[in-house]
Amino acid sequence: MAEPRVLVLDDDPPPDLRRLAGRARVLRTDESGLAAALPEADVLLVWNFLSDAVKRAWPGDGPRPSWVHTASAGVDRLLPELAGSDTVITNARGVFDQPIAEYVTGWVLAMAKDFAGSWELQRSHRWQHRETMRVGGTRAVVVGSGPIGRAIGRTLLALGVSVELVGRTAREGDAEFGHVNGFEALDGLLPEADWVVCAAPLTPATDGLFDAKAFARMKDGAAFVNIGRGAHVVTADLVDALGTGRLRGAAVDVLREEPLGPESPLWDVPGLWISPHMSGDTLGWRRDLAEQFCDNFDHWAAGRPLLNIVDKRLGYVPAH
Amino acid sequence: MAEPRVLVLDDDPPPDLRRLAGRARVLRTDESGLAAALPEADVLLVWNFLSDAVKRAWPGDGPRPSWVHTASAGVDRLLPELAGSDTVITNARGVFDQPIAEYVTGWVLAMAKDFAGSWELQRSHRWQHRETMRVGGTRAVVVGSGPIGRAIGRTLLALGVSVELVGRTAREGDAEFGHVNGFEALDGLLPEADWVVCAAPLTPATDGLFDAKAFARMKDGAAFVNIGRGAHVVTADLVDALGTGRLRGAAVDVLREEPLGPESPLWDVPGLWISPHMSGDTLGWRRDLAEQFCDNFDHWAAGRPLLNIVDKRLGYVPAH
Repeated sequence: MAEPRVLVLDDDPPPDLRRLAGRARVLRTDESGLAAALPEADVLLVWNFLSDAVKRAWPGDGPRPSWVHTASAGVDRLLPELAGSDTVITNARGVFDQPIAEYVTGWVLAMAKDFAGSWELQRSHRWQHRETMRVGGTRAVVVGSGPIGRAIGRTLLALGVSVELVGRTAREGDAEFGHVNGFEALDGLLPEADWVVCAAPLTPATDGLFDAKAFARMKDGAAFVNIGRGAHVVTADLVDALGTGRLRGAAVDVLREEPLGPESPLWDVPGLWISPHMSGDTLGWRRDLAEQFCDNFDHWAAGRPLLNIVDKRLGYVPAH
Repeated sequence: MAEPRVLVLDDDPPPDLRRLAGRARVLRTDESGLAAALPEADVLLVWNFLSDAVKRAWPGDGPRPSWVHTASAGVDRLLPELAGSDTVITNARGVFDQPIAEYVTGWVLAMAKDFAGSWELQRSHRWQHRETMRVGGTRAVVVGSGPIGRAIGRTLLALGVSVELVGRTAREGDAEFGHVNGFEALDGLLPEADWVVCAAPLTPATDGLFDAKAFARMKDGAAFVNIGRGAHVVTADLVDALGTGRLRGAAVDVLREEPLGPESPLWDVPGLWISPHMSGDTLGWRRDLAEQFCDNFDHWAAGRPLLNIVDKRLGYVPAH
């Protein structure tokens, strides 16, 4: 058999795929060359996971690779276009869990302790004591019961926060959290939470989940954190909710517009903390992502079942 | 027996001591009236724990109260002046442990994730992705093995940080940390640590502990956190160390000059994060401190042993 062809939708810096030397022919393309290169590819690695080029090239003319791996946890930039084809999608499930959990926990602590206020005061050379919030004993609702949501919940639990996970399906007997709530429980949980964290996959069921009604249900002084996708939030509704002053703040690592342009008014919304889609990207993350793909290539080349196969109907890798 | 007289070295707001109604006569004084009021007092509550007035009034003329309680964990503003007298000193051991642990953990995460950088970029409307640091798997040295140091260590352990506690005396068989290191081990531990936290009581042995030699031993990219006392640090040496750019940063909640005046050059030192001695002061802390004093008053009035008796030679409440 000829060496299989692995096509990489590239980004800067490119992945280190030296592990595949002698076992695959690695071809690179940018967005503009993707459609033309696809018919020759056995495997597509979506390294530039912020691109929408893949869904635009599907189904397209000619054969398509039977396996697409994306170097991201979310697959919302591949679906629903690839759902109808035979192509198997795998994702980067696992790589980002702990880094994102740390990021969210850092934000919870920073908002509780008013670090931003301290930095503003330092900038103006003012020593001004304030009383801040104890995190132990507070309550969090984490929307998303996959590995990222669970890692967030686990880390908050370790700080003495009580955690309610919300997932697609309610279930009892969860070893770490006691139970997982279904989405239908969210409305009832929001008024009780000090911290509302969005860690869900973006699917039709979660698109725009955080809207004016959801923010209105949150209690005074609650804070919102989004590390899911920008489209989980109705941005104007979040801005309005922050404008009332009722919320402690909102920290968002993802936005509908990415990268956010310098002219966006969002940069200057009081109480809104923006970071550039980096919560999971700790030093070495690109190496980890490339290793994960090479591991899965080993499975594929040996005819073993692929790891992290996405359920294209659900839009994520199911737990079981 | 006449109602005992409880003298309060007051601060704003004053303590809520309504629990003592009918059982004690509560008298208030400011710093200027303290010396004159002391001979009539059975008990002194040092509510304004930032004051040096008590040590200046000791031993002084006339009788002194047999019990002094300070609404702080540190007793460095009472010693050594009160050490030679029969007066028993008790402190606020316990109230600040978890809040301070959360504060330190928040700083560790904020420095690892470059929150300050994100806020600077947001201020200038720039979307600039960076790779940040994974906290799990890093190493911390916590100097101070009392309840505050232990709470810090416990919280960092929960994030997957390996923790070395440093206390006065090395000991094996610690249930949470495996062992506690003696001070003589500190020089060897500093080069290995990503996070160096000062949570020690201020005593002659720890005064100026963090000096040029200590900072020089820290590894590149290490960060320093001080929630002990300002005098633990040779400030100019810390500024010099930050100036080399070798350290990730330093977060200090305590300084030699408190409150720090608006003209201080420290406000503008790059990589130095200053907060105004508030790490332990969560909402309700004053109520907790007043309750703790009233609890101890119950012991005193009933002739039972006082809680949190400070070893005036050591300068803190020993563990056993």
